[in-house]
Amino acid sequence: MAVGLKAPDHLYPVKGVRLSAVHSGIKADSKVKDLALIEIQAGSSVAAVFTQSHFCAAPVSLCRQHLAQKPASRFLLINSGNANAATGEAGLETARLCCQAVADAAGVSAEEVLPFSTGVIAEQLQPEPVLQAVAGLVEDLDANGWLATAEAIMTTDTLPKAVSVQLCVNNRPVSITGIAKGSGMIKPNMATMLTYITTDAGIPRQALAHLLDGLVATSFNSITVDGDTSTNDSCVLVATGASGVEIEDGDTEFHAALQQVFEKLAQAIIRDAEGATKFVEISVEGAASVADARSIGFTIAESPLVKTALFASDPNWGRFIMAIGRSPLEQIDTDRIDLYLGSVRLLHRGLPDPGYRESLGQDEMSRDEISIRVNLNLGDASARIWTSDLSYEYVKINAEYRS
Amino acid sequence: MAVGLKAPDHLYPVKGVRLSAVHSGIKADSKVKDLALIEIQAGSSVAAVFTQSHFCAAPVSLCRQHLAQKPASRFLLINSGNANAATGEAGLETARLCCQAVADAAGVSAEEVLPFSTGVIAEQLQPEPVLQAVAGLVEDLDANGWLATAEAIMTTDTLPKAVSVQLCVNNRPVSITGIAKGSGMIKPNMATMLTYITTDAGIPRQALAHLLDGLVATSFNSITVDGDTSTNDSCVLVATGASGVEIEDGDTEFHAALQQVFEKLAQAIIRDAEGATKFVEISVEGAASVADARSIGFTIAESPLVKTALFASDPNWGRFIMAIGRSPLEQIDTDRIDLYLGSVRLLHRGLPDPGYRESLGQDEMSRDEISIRVNLNLGDASARIWTSDLSYEYVKINAEYRS
Repeated sequence: MAVGLKAPDHLYPVKGVRLSAVHSGIKADSKVKDLALIEIQAGSSVAAVFTQSHFCAAPVSLCRQHLAQKPASRFLLINSGNANAATGEAGLETARLCCQAVADAAGVSAEEVLPFSTGVIAEQLQPEPVLQAVAGLVEDLDANGWLATAEAIMTTDTLPKAVSVQLCVNNRPVSITGIAKGSGMIKPNMATMLTYITTDAGIPRQALAHLLDGLVATSFNSITVDGDTSTNDSCVLVATGASGVEIEDGDTEFHAALQQVFEKLAQAIIRDAEGATKFVEISVEGAASVADARSIGFTIAESPLVKTALFASDPNWGRFIMAIGRSPLEQIDTDRIDLYLGSVRLLHRGLPDPGYRESLGQDEMSRDEISIRVNLNLGDASARIWTSDLSYEYVKINAEYRS
Repeated sequence: MAVGLKAPDHLYPVKGVRLSAVHSGIKADSKVKDLALIEIQAGSSVAAVFTQSHFCAAPVSLCRQHLAQKPASRFLLINSGNANAATGEAGLETARLCCQAVADAAGVSAEEVLPFSTGVIAEQLQPEPVLQAVAGLVEDLDANGWLATAEAIMTTDTLPKAVSVQLCVNNRPVSITGIAKGSGMIKPNMATMLTYITTDAGIPRQALAHLLDGLVATSFNSITVDGDTSTNDSCVLVATGASGVEIEDGDTEFHAALQQVFEKLAQAIIRDAEGATKFVEISVEGAASVADARSIGFTIAESPLVKTALFASDPNWGRFIMAIGRSPLEQIDTDRIDLYLGSVRLLHRGLPDPGYRESLGQDEMSRDEISIRVNLNLGDASARIWTSDLSYEYVKINAEYRS
């Protein structure tokens, strides 16, 4: 029951990128794809960020190792159904075997293959289904394999998530296409649940890595479903250069288009959050620092009491105040705070707005898409955070996840 | 549906303390008490700690002001049904009027009266019902008024919460009796939702304040239902000295009894947490610092994914690992971690225990009272945190709170 989100229709191929996906047998349901391969042409730039969890998964460790050895990755191998996390040396060995199988079938070295997993934590991933499927995946690689791949990486997602744009840079067409998965255990920290964004524009590797850090901060690192950071979060940005267009610092149109792809994919995760009935944007303005603005935004976004009020469409905005009050902040002056629900002012300079009426708040809370805006009137820093509500369905999905 | 908790039966009177409670009209249901008064005899020591919320409620501000002016408080006036928070100068004036009414009726000064409120945030508390009830409350003060008072301060609590012990110090009987309320919006920070604990032992005021800080740290500051800190949390400890017994530093039996009252009351809040079907103790041992131990304990305790697994009695302990992994820590070495569910070892030195079987985990998770134990094997610091699960009922209670 995604909020304002449909399955993607047209996805532009990206020159230099081919994809394939199958049901390999990791998931029990044979109608469901669970394994995907993405090929990146030689000479592309690749940048990646990963979960900051202390308990990162085996494939995350191996990705970091492979990127350190050979930064110009050629293949991304992604399975759903099992996270290969907290699986020790055996889990690492499984990830290595799977990379080697791709290397053998495609004629590259194992270090040029990056492995990714998502699914249940603390269960061993059986390598056999993957090893048997690899040759077929290499054979089936196709520039139009985006949708199948977006489907193969889903877990509790109800819809595949992809964003695709085409624009002209220096009078030549450039494509940007990205896919993401994620619906619960979503509070990416430096990265997110599996996301792969590619362009056929050319961007040098160092510049691409710098670009990725900035883009992730205001997209995947600005969303939360449940405050829970996964062991497997990974975000990969690829620039193949196959369009023949090289991107310069001044190409603002391209950068804006890329930022839009990041933001829309991050928002797609929230729109399809586990049990979500609301899509909520929380803007915090006038803060002394971005850290303070993000702290308030995330505290509101992760409060179970705020989230249940959102689910109930109940304008019980005392809970917004509670959440602001408990935020860990460097600086605050409650007598300066303005608080808005949509266009309705709730607090003016720290006090309930005399013009507020319950019916006004009720109208705003009844919408599917809700905006909460806090102005601290202290400084110039701001942040936007996106989140979902806490519904019966969220409890049901996560109580029954393994059954 | 409190977990392992019954309504209190026998509560010992505390010499020097009298109580009364009524339905004043703040709550709509005339069968429900919503206002209580506690009298403390002159010459008692009083210590109090309050919420650290930036948005503290009007009565909390007034309590701090009154305690600064006259530390020897004589009356505690407590209402449920309205938090008098985010109510500005009008809210402060209401709290002042209510204190003055008690002062007039009882012949003390307004500064000797401490006001407390709990209930809906951001709605004005109407003073009239309180003002009209005060004379009757003063008249009805009774040493046996504990249970009625515990009832009058309830909001979403399903049971009144009280703990009472009697012991002999220097061959003379000393009583300790305390009451608490709280069920949701529970992550006290330096204090808790309304709690009043009294003894007729004598303890000097400075010593009492020091004692309170230590006791709160390992009781009310070690519980969480939803990570949400209230605007109104308050904890008051009173020593009347009316038993004629003066407590010294070396009276370990008395201190142990007092600590037990604090712990049991804090645990009672968790046992009666909104929608709780499980009572969960999380022990973190072998940490480099108490802060690290508490950080892991609270991250596990507040993870919606851990809490839904607990509700489902699902031994999906990959979620415990996820929570440890995302804890903000000074120091960790995942290769040293041992993790237990009850008596079943899940992780040994960071790896799944080879002897683990799903049926063993299932047995532990099926209990009403669950223990999760993490040993970091790094240092000597430890902490215990108590929490509840996240059930459909929690969502229901908080989605329908105002309807």
